[in-house]
Amino acid sequence: MFSVNEHYLDIKQSYIFTEIAARVRKFSEEHPDKKVIRMGIGDVTLPLAKTVVEALVKASQEMGVKETFHGYGPEQGYDFLRERISEYYASMGVTLQDGEVFVSDGAKSDVANITDLFGNDNVVLICDPVYPVYVDTNRMLGRTIKFLQGDESNGFLPMPPSFHGDIIYLCSPNNPTGAVYDRAQLKAWVDYAKAEGAIILFDAAYESFIEDPSLPRSIFEIDGAKDCAIEFCSLSKTAGFTGTRCGYTVVPKGIEVTAKNGKTLNLNAMWMRRQTTKFNGVPYIIQRGAEAVFTPEGLKEIRENIQYYKQNAKILADCFTELGIPFTGGINSPYIWLKCPDGMDSWAFFDLLLNGAAVVGTPGAGFGDAGEGYFRLTAFSDRENTLEAVERIKALLKK
Amino acid sequence: MFSVNEHYLDIKQSYIFTEIAARVRKFSEEHPDKKVIRMGIGDVTLPLAKTVVEALVKASQEMGVKETFHGYGPEQGYDFLRERISEYYASMGVTLQDGEVFVSDGAKSDVANITDLFGNDNVVLICDPVYPVYVDTNRMLGRTIKFLQGDESNGFLPMPPSFHGDIIYLCSPNNPTGAVYDRAQLKAWVDYAKAEGAIILFDAAYESFIEDPSLPRSIFEIDGAKDCAIEFCSLSKTAGFTGTRCGYTVVPKGIEVTAKNGKTLNLNAMWMRRQTTKFNGVPYIIQRGAEAVFTPEGLKEIRENIQYYKQNAKILADCFTELGIPFTGGINSPYIWLKCPDGMDSWAFFDLLLNGAAVVGTPGAGFGDAGEGYFRLTAFSDRENTLEAVERIKALLKK
Repeated sequence: MFSVNEHYLDIKQSYIFTEIAARVRKFSEEHPDKKVIRMGIGDVTLPLAKTVVEALVKASQEMGVKETFHGYGPEQGYDFLRERISEYYASMGVTLQDGEVFVSDGAKSDVANITDLFGNDNVVLICDPVYPVYVDTNRMLGRTIKFLQGDESNGFLPMPPSFHGDIIYLCSPNNPTGAVYDRAQLKAWVDYAKAEGAIILFDAAYESFIEDPSLPRSIFEIDGAKDCAIEFCSLSKTAGFTGTRCGYTVVPKGIEVTAKNGKTLNLNAMWMRRQTTKFNGVPYIIQRGAEAVFTPEGLKEIRENIQYYKQNAKILADCFTELGIPFTGGINSPYIWLKCPDGMDSWAFFDLLLNGAAVVGTPGAGFGDAGEGYFRLTAFSDRENTLEAVERIKALLKK
Repeated sequence: MFSVNEHYLDIKQSYIFTEIAARVRKFSEEHPDKKVIRMGIGDVTLPLAKTVVEALVKASQEMGVKETFHGYGPEQGYDFLRERISEYYASMGVTLQDGEVFVSDGAKSDVANITDLFGNDNVVLICDPVYPVYVDTNRMLGRTIKFLQGDESNGFLPMPPSFHGDIIYLCSPNNPTGAVYDRAQLKAWVDYAKAEGAIILFDAAYESFIEDPSLPRSIFEIDGAKDCAIEFCSLSKTAGFTGTRCGYTVVPKGIEVTAKNGKTLNLNAMWMRRQTTKFNGVPYIIQRGAEAVFTPEGLKEIRENIQYYKQNAKILADCFTELGIPFTGGINSPYIWLKCPDGMDSWAFFDLLLNGAAVVGTPGAGFGDAGEGYFRLTAFSDRENTLEAVERIKALLKK
């Protein structure tokens, strides 16, 4: 009999969103008159920017005309988009070489597929609480994971440990905690990676929410990072592309490893080989939409949307400040990560919020053991619902 | 130092299309007056069908309006598309259960990513000549590959060997040879798979080119295949989606393997877990375009395009019949796989065709050792170029 990858038995079934859906369904059945406000899943609600839609429509029409039809494109993305992304990095003060940007269908795919490039003997460092994809994709390969605990003492920003690690997952601004590493903290991580011969996999999916100019939006703003880091980013939250699907990954050209036989393997070349072999590129239409994001008009429009969500985040943050409930995030991030009051566990607080305020969030326990006792709310609802949720939460929790 | 996947050293660098491009460039520089006709890469040239473009435009516009905007969709695809694909299978006499169809960004991704589900101790059977993705994705994992030679004696349709195999890649109609398995041959493969406890990975990307109703378009037309086969298909060639990116994979619900610890792993559930963890679905816009393919009007339009390419294939086939050059394909397939005349090797024939007729094809050696001495031409050019290429080839090769 053929054999299967039995490491799939080691992945926890992710019941959290199923369980949330079930509890919300039960509540709605029992209280059909109550309007439930959903602040659980990190999905956007504003439509795509006008400039982006125009580009999508134009590109769709091009596909219907022989002279402007596009067949197979380069797997790593069209130059018209890769160049705009390089310019976007340049605007952060980061200089990229030609061929370092790879366009993809989203940060999730790339963060997951990058595991292909590494050996199974690596020690993987993952912060807890965590976006579950880092954990599950490594468990699927039977790799050793060491968790670095985030908590109130470190502001949910774990720093380099005293032990060795080979592959380091960092996400800043963090999902789910909204915490953001500052330059000194990221520099410490880069120094650790260089000292240990480790590689940092840096998830920058929420970089566009950073407003404090002293905070780094890219790991490549840190000296030395191009020797030891790969960065993943996405238009999902930057430009509302959760259902449109486009992201990008930067793999510096200079990162090389000597194989056991003495030959050199270059990570950039390996990722190119991986993508050309196992991927066929992002739809032409979608790449034209993504290109429009980076035009002056597109950037102006998406920044208005980001400001809208950031104002929601501020409304949530002000609410919990007023209630005296500790939290991270809310600034420089679309997430609010709050401590469940009165020592409640995260599912108990979920039930309290659902039954007492008809507001749905995500129990922190769904993001790892260190998430127990915490709770995530997102700023991606619309303004009216955010304001109403805050009023309901205050009425429920004010003592 | 972190370790990399050193199996990447075992993959042959795929120089073929680079080398083709270099030789064509040199020829064009030396003969700027000669019009080069390209029949090398299997990319389509007709634009998307009108119905599909209308659906893409409409969906793009929906994304710009809050009420019709779509964020994250189900990773396995929207029901509106999965149901149309199930109906398409029903039209072939194949009944699929709910949840057996997975929408993806193309057959290449799924054929490559399906390797995630299997153990590295499997013996992989691959026909030679071959679409290189099957080979490279298994080499990247260090798996043992046994090649089954296609040649004139078996019509480039290798049959089950006398030795054991665990994972079997079959492609019919075949890329690159254009050869098509009949029902009895596929039944023999299904019987072999069941006797050996093997799984068949069936690539049906060219099924829509089959016109002979006695030939199977899906492996699931064969009794017992739902116990031992996964099927991959794509709209790339069916509907000109090479740059639009949508395909689908059928994983039957009944295929289960007992793990070493006695637990049961179900392939359909594993693929669902793989896709929900490592993929975020196909863009909503693209899925609406794909849905339009399966409407009566869409099917009518794409069938006209397929007929156009099939007529090109017939023109090529008639040319080589007239020249007395043996070939496979040309009927039920967009590919012509011909024997290089006078015992030439495939690069020698490439040079002859380029220099003598300014026609570009693909040397068979690029598809594996068994491809040496053969040559692939595609029917995806436009009519005018196909006719001109045939005249030039006849003038060059007629004795």
